[in-house]
Amino acid sequence: MNERFADGAAYVRGGFVPIAEANISVLDWGFTRSDCVYDVVHVFNDGFFRLQDHMRRFARAMGKRKLAPPESLERMEEILHRCVALTGLSDAYVAMIASRGRPKIGGSRRPADCENHFMAYAIPWIDVIPKDVQERGAHLWIASVPRVPDASVDPTVKNYQWSDLTTGLMEAHEHGFDTAILCDAQGFVTEGPGFNVFVVKDGKVLTPDRGSLQGVTRQSVLDLCAMEGIPAEIAPIPRAVLEDADEVFTATTAGGVMPVSRVGTRIMGNDRPGPLSARLKALYWKKHAEGWHYTPVRKELAAAAE
Amino acid sequence: MNERFADGAAYVRGGFVPIAEANISVLDWGFTRSDCVYDVVHVFNDGFFRLQDHMRRFARAMGKRKLAPPESLERMEEILHRCVALTGLSDAYVAMIASRGRPKIGGSRRPADCENHFMAYAIPWIDVIPKDVQERGAHLWIASVPRVPDASVDPTVKNYQWSDLTTGLMEAHEHGFDTAILCDAQGFVTEGPGFNVFVVKDGKVLTPDRGSLQGVTRQSVLDLCAMEGIPAEIAPIPRAVLEDADEVFTATTAGGVMPVSRVGTRIMGNDRPGPLSARLKALYWKKHAEGWHYTPVRKELAAAAE
Repeated sequence: MNERFADGAAYVRGGFVPIAEANISVLDWGFTRSDCVYDVVHVFNDGFFRLQDHMRRFARAMGKRKLAPPESLERMEEILHRCVALTGLSDAYVAMIASRGRPKIGGSRRPADCENHFMAYAIPWIDVIPKDVQERGAHLWIASVPRVPDASVDPTVKNYQWSDLTTGLMEAHEHGFDTAILCDAQGFVTEGPGFNVFVVKDGKVLTPDRGSLQGVTRQSVLDLCAMEGIPAEIAPIPRAVLEDADEVFTATTAGGVMPVSRVGTRIMGNDRPGPLSARLKALYWKKHAEGWHYTPVRKELAAAAE
Repeated sequence: MNERFADGAAYVRGGFVPIAEANISVLDWGFTRSDCVYDVVHVFNDGFFRLQDHMRRFARAMGKRKLAPPESLERMEEILHRCVALTGLSDAYVAMIASRGRPKIGGSRRPADCENHFMAYAIPWIDVIPKDVQERGAHLWIASVPRVPDASVDPTVKNYQWSDLTTGLMEAHEHGFDTAILCDAQGFVTEGPGFNVFVVKDGKVLTPDRGSLQGVTRQSVLDLCAMEGIPAEIAPIPRAVLEDADEVFTATTAGGVMPVSRVGTRIMGNDRPGPLSARLKALYWKKHAEGWHYTPVRKELAAAAE
């Protein structure tokens, strides 16, 4: 570990730098057109969680947007290891980004003429919903803004185009709520700013089939349900089902399984996380401790990068 | 003028730097959530065109997204002048950006806790559609991807969330077209990647009433039509009207009035810019030469900034 990288380490323009020096040109189309894809994987107890699932999803996203940075997937994975190793962090938030870059040919306005590039960074762990809020259960505002339709922007291709989610989030805060959940224009539940959502009704667990990222933590919840014999399904969820749920919880890499205690004006259970939500949350972390889908960080790479 | 700024000058983090050094942190929500608004004004013959209209639109956009950088509007305007003056350019593309920034409070995930900041830059003139293509008339592909609905992301708040536009643009290039026009899910014409569109039918000029930026060049076209007694209207335009148009042209700050000669499989007129399009284009530049809406660049500011 190196003090320079204590706040975070990044890979940009082919080299490793402290996070404070990690930036992107204001002319990069990854910024000026939000023309980039990304993924986030977490490190817990010195190991990545489901690293291969994240790499696979990232590769698919790059393919869908025709982004092809020079680094191979194998090299990208090594870069993630190095970033974490440089920070010396045991628990970390690790992001990878493929950006369109800028046209190599003067005057071109064609995405195909751009020099795509890969960036990555590791920083201390982030909770999308703060830990104290997770304890009491998050208060979820049902946003008035409809989620961007899947036909216009594919939500399974992880992207930074958060305007609708941010609008919902600001609306939630104005109303004294912690965060928001968006429905689509047809009134079906989608996702929130940075997380998937689950509803529990009559012992059954449901998560939306549309307007949502195919979350790795979402998959973990479905896997845990299968292991425990809890019925779970990816399905259309009308807003009324969310409002009438026995329990609601959210799921994301940056926080894990996070129970909800209020949805809109409705207070669920005893205004605390529901029993099944709490059980899945505990199980999610128990499985982490047992080394589920664990890839040890290659700490020896820290020296090589300096 | 200073050689360091020949390729462009920027204002970032409160100081003036060569464009190559103008960047944004990979952790800035302006990047990771595309949580920013922007505007672009052009400089032609050492003067800004309709600068106040751009400043007004930018101020409105900041207000709509609750972005409040520390610089006053007056100071922002001065910064734009200085950026151009530093480059020594007579014709320039000048951008201003207000970004969410990062939370001032450790661990906060609230937009309201972020330190908003202002950036700007002046670089050599950009044509969204290359000049040779403008001469023969652009070939416009009608994209299969529907424009993001206004209810989800307000298109009158100029933003970098171009995914649907980029999808259309890549589709256009794959089919051998120059650029794309998008319709919304209801089949009404909206805009293209970086420009408004106009259709001419039976001597009347129409431009879409939805899914579009309220373009300053669009306004200039409407003003020119009023001056010339050409009937013009902002109206709903079904796709069939676009496909059946006598003429089509596009309008943007980065290029001006740009005629179209083909829309989808349809070749208009004699496969050249239509007469009314060519007339409006010529008039647009004639009015520039006459000093219409002209604000001279304050060149004396170059020295002050160094």
